[in-house]
Amino acid sequence: MAASRPKLTCSNSMLVIVSLLTLLSTLEGYTIIERPTRPSLDEYLHQRGLLASAEAELALGADIELSSNESLVNNYLMDLKISELSAGFINPINFNPARHFFEVLDQITASPLFQFIREMPKGGVLHAHDTALASTEVIVNATYRPHLWQRGDFQKGVEFKFSRTKPTPDDGWETVDTVRKRLGVDKYDAEIRQLFTLYDADPLNAYRTINDVWDRFSRLFLALNPIVTYKPVWEYYFREALREFYEDNVMYLEFRGLLPTLYDLDGKSYKPEDVVEIYRRITEEFKAENPGFAGTKFIYAPLRLVDNETVEQYISLAERLHTQYGDYVVGFDLVGQEDKGYPLYKFIPQLLSMPETINFLFHAGETNWHGMPTDENLLDAILLGTKRIGHGYALIKHPVLLDEVKKRKICVEINPISNQVLKLVADYRNHPASVLFTSDFPLVVSSDDPSFWRATPLSHDFYMAFLGMASAHQDLRLLKKLALNSLHYSLMSEKEKSAAEATFHEAWENFVNAKAAQLTTKRKQV
Amino acid sequence: MAASRPKLTCSNSMLVIVSLLTLLSTLEGYTIIERPTRPSLDEYLHQRGLLASAEAELALGADIELSSNESLVNNYLMDLKISELSAGFINPINFNPARHFFEVLDQITASPLFQFIREMPKGGVLHAHDTALASTEVIVNATYRPHLWQRGDFQKGVEFKFSRTKPTPDDGWETVDTVRKRLGVDKYDAEIRQLFTLYDADPLNAYRTINDVWDRFSRLFLALNPIVTYKPVWEYYFREALREFYEDNVMYLEFRGLLPTLYDLDGKSYKPEDVVEIYRRITEEFKAENPGFAGTKFIYAPLRLVDNETVEQYISLAERLHTQYGDYVVGFDLVGQEDKGYPLYKFIPQLLSMPETINFLFHAGETNWHGMPTDENLLDAILLGTKRIGHGYALIKHPVLLDEVKKRKICVEINPISNQVLKLVADYRNHPASVLFTSDFPLVVSSDDPSFWRATPLSHDFYMAFLGMASAHQDLRLLKKLALNSLHYSLMSEKEKSAAEATFHEAWENFVNAKAAQLTTKRKQV
Repeated sequence: MAASRPKLTCSNSMLVIVSLLTLLSTLEGYTIIERPTRPSLDEYLHQRGLLASAEAELALGADIELSSNESLVNNYLMDLKISELSAGFINPINFNPARHFFEVLDQITASPLFQFIREMPKGGVLHAHDTALASTEVIVNATYRPHLWQRGDFQKGVEFKFSRTKPTPDDGWETVDTVRKRLGVDKYDAEIRQLFTLYDADPLNAYRTINDVWDRFSRLFLALNPIVTYKPVWEYYFREALREFYEDNVMYLEFRGLLPTLYDLDGKSYKPEDVVEIYRRITEEFKAENPGFAGTKFIYAPLRLVDNETVEQYISLAERLHTQYGDYVVGFDLVGQEDKGYPLYKFIPQLLSMPETINFLFHAGETNWHGMPTDENLLDAILLGTKRIGHGYALIKHPVLLDEVKKRKICVEINPISNQVLKLVADYRNHPASVLFTSDFPLVVSSDDPSFWRATPLSHDFYMAFLGMASAHQDLRLLKKLALNSLHYSLMSEKEKSAAEATFHEAWENFVNAKAAQLTTKRKQV
Repeated sequence: MAASRPKLTCSNSMLVIVSLLTLLSTLEGYTIIERPTRPSLDEYLHQRGLLASAEAELALGADIELSSNESLVNNYLMDLKISELSAGFINPINFNPARHFFEVLDQITASPLFQFIREMPKGGVLHAHDTALASTEVIVNATYRPHLWQRGDFQKGVEFKFSRTKPTPDDGWETVDTVRKRLGVDKYDAEIRQLFTLYDADPLNAYRTINDVWDRFSRLFLALNPIVTYKPVWEYYFREALREFYEDNVMYLEFRGLLPTLYDLDGKSYKPEDVVEIYRRITEEFKAENPGFAGTKFIYAPLRLVDNETVEQYISLAERLHTQYGDYVVGFDLVGQEDKGYPLYKFIPQLLSMPETINFLFHAGETNWHGMPTDENLLDAILLGTKRIGHGYALIKHPVLLDEVKKRKICVEINPISNQVLKLVADYRNHPASVLFTSDFPLVVSSDDPSFWRATPLSHDFYMAFLGMASAHQDLRLLKKLALNSLHYSLMSEKEKSAAEATFHEAWENFVNAKAAQLTTKRKQV
């Protein structure tokens, strides 16, 4: 059509022609190809406002209304956030979420935004693993217990064991006490701290791929196991973990574990049921001392790189535990590096045979191999009726599955720092959950294995999510929403959940009011 | 409800209870909370098939039907793809798209998948910049021309100029010929090759942030400018660029440029209109020699970091060119590092004043600062009625804008390698366009500044997109779709487009039939 592409020097003539054509088309029933003219500035700004609000209203947390005290605190929070964003915008080397976590640990500790998040009630942690809960200092302390032996060396590989007498076969075992004296306390403890985290001062060169990290991860696990499975340490470790979580203002913990066999100095071994009993007892003791703590629940999550027979053993244990501890052992999962383990698809008949009252809480999509078998764990997790998805890192690449997850309200457990340390993503701003944060998506932020990366139980992950993954516009409402989601998507009973929510709201009010009071005092002083 | 959470050891009893309750609810109008029981294996596999197909049918390229020869070629292509994916899956260090482009240039050249893509007709390039089109060898050749002078040194900064006599002021100028003789030809040419690309053998340590690359980028630009704006080089450069694009099996080029003032040895300067005339003349000459080449069109795209007055000068030039060369100068854009330049929002009144027949083709969302002012360029580009979006890297973080883009069929120009080299993303598997590839989204893959990263005109970007960003399942249909999209979303007239499409289909048929014949011969020989 000639009129739609005329060579005019005057835009007014164009407008006249288009208007005439539009008029004609209306009068005569002609159809012309619609060529929108440019709007006026006022009209433009109006449209712009509408579109920007539409997006803001959709965002995660946008449904929360802030009280006046919350708004006051929010202004302070956003000043902190914008200040870090602005410094990063000028030079991204100063932006913590653009760097590897290990490179910026000290900067984060010094960040007032991080301090704010640390003090804030954060609800629960719904994705964390049994032997990565407590900080490395807890392990260091454990190595001071009597009867701990070791052999090998810290560089090539070291083995530990608690035993009243020198372990057999008698090659190379020394008491930790002896080795510590020889190396000097400081050097020895530093070796322990190094051994039991993935920390490296030059992480980008130390770990080139996901395999490098998982290799070190597995070695760490093997060395750690005989220390923590010593029953007295197991109990101490769990108690300290709860203390550290609560200190980080986490009020509830739903964790995954392997239920390893524990041992003691008398040669007695403790089976899964005993381990569950220990968890329950210590949790009750901790709750009695700390009424603000809502408790813990357990997800039985054994290793996925096993044969069918082993899976069947898992399942029969899961059924036994479900019968005996249905209110505490709340679900079943399979764990281990997804890309190297077997996909869920291998175990479909076994998994379908499980009583439908056992909740599935599968790890799925902790991969960036788009369209490869690992990636299909997402498909199977959803079809198997999983209640939550561990990681779901690959989910946004599956539009149909993404819709299913939304429709079925399957909660996705996002673990930002874990995904970076385990080499799925380098820069938090590229974390796929950034997309999920733009709508009211069923998700929680969690910490996976915080002690392995020297992170706090939850605050560091919240910090990265809030500063690096969410939009610059997202504020206190997002943080509150994340906390509320962590209770809402937990597997507490409805009654427990209501109680926990009430406790949370009280802690939240206290936090907000105290902060608001501080801010008002500060302002008066100025 | 007690019945919904019974502790049963036998799943059959449960099924009976649930079935009875369901029956009751149907008969009596009761509503019960639906608790789906686990399906049978057959039912499960059926559902799984449905969900997997739903996703496969949605993917970019899924609407294309392959002929029998295409299917034959597709099997071969997919063998190549799966072979690289499998090697990467075992050890990601061997997976080119998981690495920095500079680290794997040689491996890519050796890849049979890359060779396939290089030979394949790829349609057009819709996003590339005037002085980054031709390979560095073209620049090296240009420095052999007589009358080229230089001063400074290669490490600290070097300046070039064509001049019949020694340039003034007379401090430090030597002829390139003199310097080349002194350094030795090989060393000199190596310096030139180093100077005019961003290539570094250790890119991860050389460039820590986006700013480091853009700094080097700007220095490169400044040194390059006086070489290429020498009129004889400008003409030679563009001719060679077309030759290299066509050799890479690119048949059409829609490129952006600044229309700099050209100069010659006689002190004559050439204005924007002259530059456009040169482009048109050389394109026509090239087309006459190469009937398979469909031509070039130009988008006037001056720098965005300027004041209002300069923007007004841009606009008046754009209007002049539109009037005079409406069929060749097909649009307007603003360029330069988005985070450091002004957002479109600053220039809304000026942009709204432009005749609506001038197409906008804005760069927008080439950032990972979610929710910051740069990010809002997406909002303004869309509202200003942009025909395509350059990069749109941040688009998937804006669900409302993403919908608008789909609805308005605004084509997004994805430039994979550019986004990695310019530090938006480290691993192609995390490139956000991976998400866009999962549906029939209006997009093209392009190359931005291929010569600056020693890439071929388009093949390297297609390789990264196909292997690193698309699903493992996406095949020849995706590649064909990308080629077709590049013609469909071009700004050729409908007539030109039909002709180009016919030419493409002919080249495609020839390619497919030749490949199929090769494969059949090979098979017979085995």
